[in-house]
Amino acid sequence: MKKEEKKVINDLVNYKNLKIMQDKNYFNFSLDSILLPNFVNITPNTKKILDLCTGNAPIPLILSTRTKANIIGVELQKEIYKLAIESVKLNHSDNIEIINEDVKKVCKKFETDTFDIITCNPPYFKYNKNSILNENDIKSVARHEIKITLEDIILTAKKLLKNGGSLCMVHRTDRLIEIIEKMKKNNIEPKRIQFIYPKKNSESNIILIDGRKNGNPGLKVLNPLIVHNEDGSYTNEVLKIFGSD
Amino acid sequence: MKKEEKKVINDLVNYKNLKIMQDKNYFNFSLDSILLPNFVNITPNTKKILDLCTGNAPIPLILSTRTKANIIGVELQKEIYKLAIESVKLNHSDNIEIINEDVKKVCKKFETDTFDIITCNPPYFKYNKNSILNENDIKSVARHEIKITLEDIILTAKKLLKNGGSLCMVHRTDRLIEIIEKMKKNNIEPKRIQFIYPKKNSESNIILIDGRKNGNPGLKVLNPLIVHNEDGSYTNEVLKIFGSD
Repeated sequence: MKKEEKKVINDLVNYKNLKIMQDKNYFNFSLDSILLPNFVNITPNTKKILDLCTGNAPIPLILSTRTKANIIGVELQKEIYKLAIESVKLNHSDNIEIINEDVKKVCKKFETDTFDIITCNPPYFKYNKNSILNENDIKSVARHEIKITLEDIILTAKKLLKNGGSLCMVHRTDRLIEIIEKMKKNNIEPKRIQFIYPKKNSESNIILIDGRKNGNPGLKVLNPLIVHNEDGSYTNEVLKIFGSD
Repeated sequence: MKKEEKKVINDLVNYKNLKIMQDKNYFNFSLDSILLPNFVNITPNTKKILDLCTGNAPIPLILSTRTKANIIGVELQKEIYKLAIESVKLNHSDNIEIINEDVKKVCKKFETDTFDIITCNPPYFKYNKNSILNENDIKSVARHEIKITLEDIILTAKKLLKNGGSLCMVHRTDRLIEIIEKMKKNNIEPKRIQFIYPKKNSESNIILIDGRKNGNPGLKVLNPLIVHNEDGSYTNEVLKIFGSD
């Protein structure tokens, strides 16, 4: 049965007057999608960016406020792809292109070794046949590795990134070891990690990681990013990223 | 030429009335040596602990305030070994034994699969033949991988730890990727990491890492430990570890 659309236009982040098209039936963009594009190192030489699992395009939209580079977002799910298209139109972001494609097939669409940066906010949870999930449910596909795995993303980055190009991902901290192993195996050297902590005295739940294709070893762990004050309000560091400080 | 001894007895940490024998010609114990024994998970079942590269024994001494387990410290350098022996005597720590041995030979001294915990504050810096260092200089040996490497330590832990036993190390953050790789290669699964940040807005310089022999995957990144306030004074978290808050 087709769900009634519950589309709303939301502010994406305050300071840039970005708008984003959401549908409450599916999911909302999350803090993670705002942190990742702020973590990316963009230079004047950045010409081509690819955002995998783009959702309703929060990452391309925020990146587009920082660069005139060509940004391509890839989204498999038709319903979400349509929201992304609307979001891009709303913001008149003419350096963003959204394509409706399976990331696993995206390598055939582009020349190898052509992207400066690949970003991804992937499904966070492992999936096995025993998981009690609807394989076609839009939320499940966005959260679980049903249609795409960590390995698929890293293999895609390996093929499509230029030599020295950067794969920037946001992911769950408890999968860090696996991420590092799979990056190393595919000659993507972890260069920068930032740990996100919900509160000052909490364990980290989220990481931002930047790996360089054929990069030399040498890791930097950036300053800790603490999201909430003790009273639950956002810290100044996070408000600064929102542009609200 | 033999250096004049510059031995002094220092307080190791305030709250436990621990004393440590130092010699200013060599080096002083560092914050790292205080953080590591506080990071170790000790249980009532912990019976045998081995501390590699023990120096003047700060780690065994602090551990001995937390457990009655048998603690063995291994130190290669005769001059430092003597300081460790004196430190242990000063504190009447009769559950600590110090041996003067090369870590690479220590496997032959003990039965395999016998230790619950192995701790190590190793030499932090890589060494190659072009490094301008005196290979016999006591400070150089303590700081550079002249006589022992990260790999030697992990191989020793692999042999001497019980199944499920824990290797706890303090090391430089920029070597994290290599540490994880070498642990994984030797079936020591990284389970807990704590990042140490000199200040709130600084990159991490030091890590504490706990790997479990034949452990299952699943990493926890503990709360960030920030050492200094903006004015350079120690933070409350660190004073708490010192027992001075």
